Amino acid sequence: MLKFYYAPRTCALAAHLALEHLGAPYEAIALNFAKQAQRSPEYLALNPKGRVPALVTERGIITETPALLLYLCQRYPEAGLAPLDDIFALAEMQAFNSYLSSTVHVAHAHRVRGERWTDDPAAIEAMKRKVPQSMGDCMALIENGMLRGPWVMGERYSVADMYLFTIAGWLEGDGVDTSKLPRVLEHRARMLEDPVVQRVCALYV
Amino acid sequence: MLKFYYAPRTCALAAHLALEHLGAPYEAIALNFAKQAQRSPEYLALNPKGRVPALVTERGIITETPALLLYLCQRYPEAGLAPLDDIFALAEMQAFNSYLSSTVHVAHAHRVRGERWTDDPAAIEAMKRKVPQSMGDCMALIENGMLRGPWVMGERYSVADMYLFTIAGWLEGDGVDTSKLPRVLEHRARMLEDPVVQRVCALYV
Repeated sequence: MLKFYYAPRTCALAAHLALEHLGAPYEAIALNFAKQAQRSPEYLALNPKGRVPALVTERGIITETPALLLYLCQRYPEAGLAPLDDIFALAEMQAFNSYLSSTVHVAHAHRVRGERWTDDPAAIEAMKRKVPQSMGDCMALIENGMLRGPWVMGERYSVADMYLFTIAGWLEGDGVDTSKLPRVLEHRARMLEDPVVQRVCALYV
Repeated sequence: MLKFYYAPRTCALAAHLALEHLGAPYEAIALNFAKQAQRSPEYLALNPKGRVPALVTERGIITETPALLLYLCQRYPEAGLAPLDDIFALAEMQAFNSYLSSTVHVAHAHRVRGERWTDDPAAIEAMKRKVPQSMGDCMALIENGMLRGPWVMGERYSVADMYLFTIAGWLEGDGVDTSKLPRVLEHRARMLEDPVVQRVCALYV
């Protein structure tokens, strides 16, 4: 059976939503980040990156949200959570997810994980001050084009919606002016109507 | 015909190598970053992110290196540059590429694009000081496991090799102690034996 490692208040929520949506049999294992469980020798032996999400399959571990989401879509193709039969549309979805992981999530991380990039406490504080703007700029691109509506890819619901929903949950904490993001907020509210989403979110508070 | 937008000294090299390797008909268009060509109204109309790489196809634009590489592999499957017939191996390749884009490239960017994350000149300098360590830590993970050898995925050459080669080209500039990375350096040297790689690299200096 698949084993899924996650932690509350992390981006693991996106893949977790996909697993639940797919009805895939899996065991969810929460890591206590406050106790640095992601740095324990046992976990590092499994995932040397010391991060979540991580999915343990019968053939080995998969990490990195864009890769993990695509894997789940391909493993359970009948669920239709990605345009697997259209390489251009799939590239658009992967580009969206890649932007979230390499630019948007990174902008957010400068508020909560600044120590990754500097040891200077004053610089860490300086980074935090720019997060409302850098996250706001990223989300403006999404608001004004990348999010087609009603779903990210247009009429078709996909794993990109789960990933956007995950990151959109951080906006208020990041100090972003959400009054400029009505479409992103509408998307978030629409996602939250789904009882599956509500159930998984309860694990992430 | 495909149009490929790139700039010297950027990660566009990875997708550029793939295009050349595939023998795909395409036009390469260099953007002059020193003159902020990536922020021109014309380019922003095409790619609102204002970055490279960007590939213009008959159906629209594709950005983000991991998405673009996968698209090229799927468009030219006969070249065998990705394990398209094995969803687990493909997930491993995508996870590798995603790690490069969301963690390794980001660590490097704190030396050259610190203004993305702070407006404070002292903080930008503080960020630069940590790059040798943060990049070194990332590359140690690659050296000690993720790079299987002789190629990233083992015996099979793939687009992940082009992407690793691209980022490994930044190590000396980033102040990383490369004496601890013999396998990464060997991989880089092996890539450079290929005349196609040599030809494309000449555009990136």
